[in-house]
Amino acid sequence: MPDHRTERVGRLSLRMSAEKIDGLLLTSLANIRYLTGFSGTSAIALITPGEVRLITDFRYETQVADEVGDAAKIRIEPVSLWTGLWEMLQKIPSVELIGFESAHVYHRDFQRLLNDGSRWQWRPQLNLVEALRESKDEDEVALIQEAARIATDALTRTLPQISPGQTELQIAGILEKALRDEGSEEAPFPPIVASGPRSALPHARASSREIVRGDLLLIDFGAQHQGYCSDVTRTFMVGIPSPEQREIYQVVRDANHFASHSIRVGMTGMAADALARSYIERCGHGEAFGHSLGHGLGLEVHEAPRLARTAEGALVPGAVVTIEPGIYRPGWGGVRIEDDVHLSENGPRILTNFSRELIEVA
Amino acid sequence: MPDHRTERVGRLSLRMSAEKIDGLLLTSLANIRYLTGFSGTSAIALITPGEVRLITDFRYETQVADEVGDAAKIRIEPVSLWTGLWEMLQKIPSVELIGFESAHVYHRDFQRLLNDGSRWQWRPQLNLVEALRESKDEDEVALIQEAARIATDALTRTLPQISPGQTELQIAGILEKALRDEGSEEAPFPPIVASGPRSALPHARASSREIVRGDLLLIDFGAQHQGYCSDVTRTFMVGIPSPEQREIYQVVRDANHFASHSIRVGMTGMAADALARSYIERCGHGEAFGHSLGHGLGLEVHEAPRLARTAEGALVPGAVVTIEPGIYRPGWGGVRIEDDVHLSENGPRILTNFSRELIEVA
Repeated sequence: MPDHRTERVGRLSLRMSAEKIDGLLLTSLANIRYLTGFSGTSAIALITPGEVRLITDFRYETQVADEVGDAAKIRIEPVSLWTGLWEMLQKIPSVELIGFESAHVYHRDFQRLLNDGSRWQWRPQLNLVEALRESKDEDEVALIQEAARIATDALTRTLPQISPGQTELQIAGILEKALRDEGSEEAPFPPIVASGPRSALPHARASSREIVRGDLLLIDFGAQHQGYCSDVTRTFMVGIPSPEQREIYQVVRDANHFASHSIRVGMTGMAADALARSYIERCGHGEAFGHSLGHGLGLEVHEAPRLARTAEGALVPGAVVTIEPGIYRPGWGGVRIEDDVHLSENGPRILTNFSRELIEVA
Repeated sequence: MPDHRTERVGRLSLRMSAEKIDGLLLTSLANIRYLTGFSGTSAIALITPGEVRLITDFRYETQVADEVGDAAKIRIEPVSLWTGLWEMLQKIPSVELIGFESAHVYHRDFQRLLNDGSRWQWRPQLNLVEALRESKDEDEVALIQEAARIATDALTRTLPQISPGQTELQIAGILEKALRDEGSEEAPFPPIVASGPRSALPHARASSREIVRGDLLLIDFGAQHQGYCSDVTRTFMVGIPSPEQREIYQVVRDANHFASHSIRVGMTGMAADALARSYIERCGHGEAFGHSLGHGLGLEVHEAPRLARTAEGALVPGAVVTIEPGIYRPGWGGVRIEDDVHLSENGPRILTNFSRELIEVA
C-alpha cells in the first residue's frame, strides 16, 4: 500500500496555514495514528511545517520504531510526555502560536499548556484532522471492507451455534471467538446481544438473560483490521416470527434498503437521515425510531459525518457511514438492521455482505 | 447488598464543604456510576447538598430508571445533556460556585461552562470522588473477587485448548469465549496475548503470530462483574522451558510472591514498588523491569493508588491493587505475573486464585 502519511500531513499543513498557526499539538490517538501510523495508547504529536514529531513512552520503544519509521521524529520519554514536549518545543524557536485539539485535551492538561507551556501561545482548534479523515482514500475503504468481511463471516460462523437456553453473554462469547478466528484485531466496542424485550433498549449490553423461542435477537457488533472498524447489526428470530414481528421487521428492512441505495454525496446528513425516517413515519412507526440513522466509520467507530436530524453538513465523497434504522417498542422488542456504506462519486457501495431477510435461528 | 450510594454522597458532601463549593458537576462515567449506580455511556450528574441529579439521553430511559431508582433525580434529554444542565441549574438559585472535574472535562466543554454557563462560577477539582473510590467497602471487594474468579476460571478453561500453530488472536478468542461463559459482562481491556519475542513488549496486542514450542506465552486480561474489574497476568511455556527461561521466571515469581505478601496499608506506593524492584535488581535484572509494580482496581481497571517509583502517597485500608512485576528482554521474550490484592487492615489478601508455577502448555 502506498504511504499516505506524507500527503495527509501536507493537506493538514495547508489547513494550519489558513488558521495562521505555527504548529499543531495532537492529543487524539486516532488522529496521531492517521498521520504517523502509531497505534499505541500513549502519545502526543507536534506538527510543524515540514516536520512531524511524536512523543511516546518506553513501553512502546520497539513498536513505535516499527510502525512509524521515518514518518516522524520519535522521542521516547521515561516519565511524562509533557516534559518531552517542553524540551522539544524549546529547540524550535520559530514556533510561537500553537493550535491544540479542544475536543481532545482535558482541562487539567489545558492548565499545563497555560502554566508549564506559558512561553508559547495556545489556540483551541476543532476538527482539523477529523475533517481530513472524513473522506477515505481507496486503501482505507479496502481496510474497512476487510473489517466488514471479518464481521459478517464471524456472524455466519456464529449463527449455527445459537440455540434457545443460551444467555446473551454466551452468544456474545461465541461471536467474539469467531471474530478472532476471522482475524479481528479487537472489538471496536463490546458486542450488543439483546433478546426479547431487551432488544427494545437501543444501547443494551449482553446480559445473563436466556433466549427463548419467540424472541427477537438483536446483535450489534464490529471488527477491526489494521485499526479500521466495521459496525454491523442484524436482528434474528428465535423460532417462528409472529405476524407483528414480521411486519415490523419488514418496515426496518425496507427503510434500510431504501436509505442504503438512495444516499448520495452532496446530500446533507439531515436529508440522508430523512430517507429512512420519513419512510418509517409513513408506516406509522416514527415515534419508535428514536436515534439517528447513522455515523461515519474509520479509525474510530463513531466519527464524522453524522446522519441525523440536526446534521446540516453535506456528505463528502469517500465518506463511509453506517445506515442503521430501527424500531423499538418498550416491553415488546426491537429491530435494527445496520450496514456500512461507502459514498463514492458513482453512488453508494454497501460494504457489509450479509442477508437482510428475517432469519430464524434454532 | 446494602445501598452504599447515600453514604458515599454524604462523604462527598463533606469534601465539597471543605472545598467551599455549592455543587459538583460530574462528567466521569465511573464516578457517576459509583454515586448513582447508572452504567450507561452518556451522562452528567450534579451533586448539591442533599440532592443528586442525573442527566442522560432517551436511549437510556428504561435502564436509568432500573439502575438508579430513587438514588438521584433523573432527567432525560432529547438533544444535549448540557442544555438539560443549564435548565436544571436555573431552578437551584442557591448554587453559585460549582466544582467540575478537571481531569474529565475536555477543553471544548470547559468553554461551554464559561460561555453557556457564565451565570455560575466554575472551579476545577481533582480526585474528589476518586479519593473516595480508593478505599473499597466489603461489597466492592466481593465484586472484584467475583471478577477475579471469572478471570481465573476462564483461564483454566482456556489452557487445555491451546496448542502450537494457533495464532495469538485465536488464543485471545478462546479466552474471550471462556470469559463470557463464566459470566464476564465485558473485557475491561482487550486481552494481551504475546508469544516468543513479542512477550517482551509490555503493551503488545494479540497478533497473527503463531505460537511455537520454545515460546514464552504471556496472557494479560481481565473480567468485569457488576462494573467491577479484575486484571490478571500469567506467563506460560509452550513446550519445555530452557534453563534461562526457568531462571527468569523464578525471579519474577519470587518478586510477585514477596511483594504480594509484604505489601501493607500505610506503606507508600513507592515503598510497595520497591518490594519487587529491589529484589529484581539484586538478581541483576533491574533494567529489565521497565514499568511500575501496579495500580488500583475497581470500577476502572486503572485507578488510584499507584505503586510506582514516584508514588509518594500512603496506601489506604481497603485499596485493591495489582502486583505485576515483570522482566523483559527485547528479542528474547518476557515474563510477567500479576495478581489482584486487597489491602485489609489485617494484611494483604490475594484475590486471584491461580497457580504461579511455570505451566507447560501443549
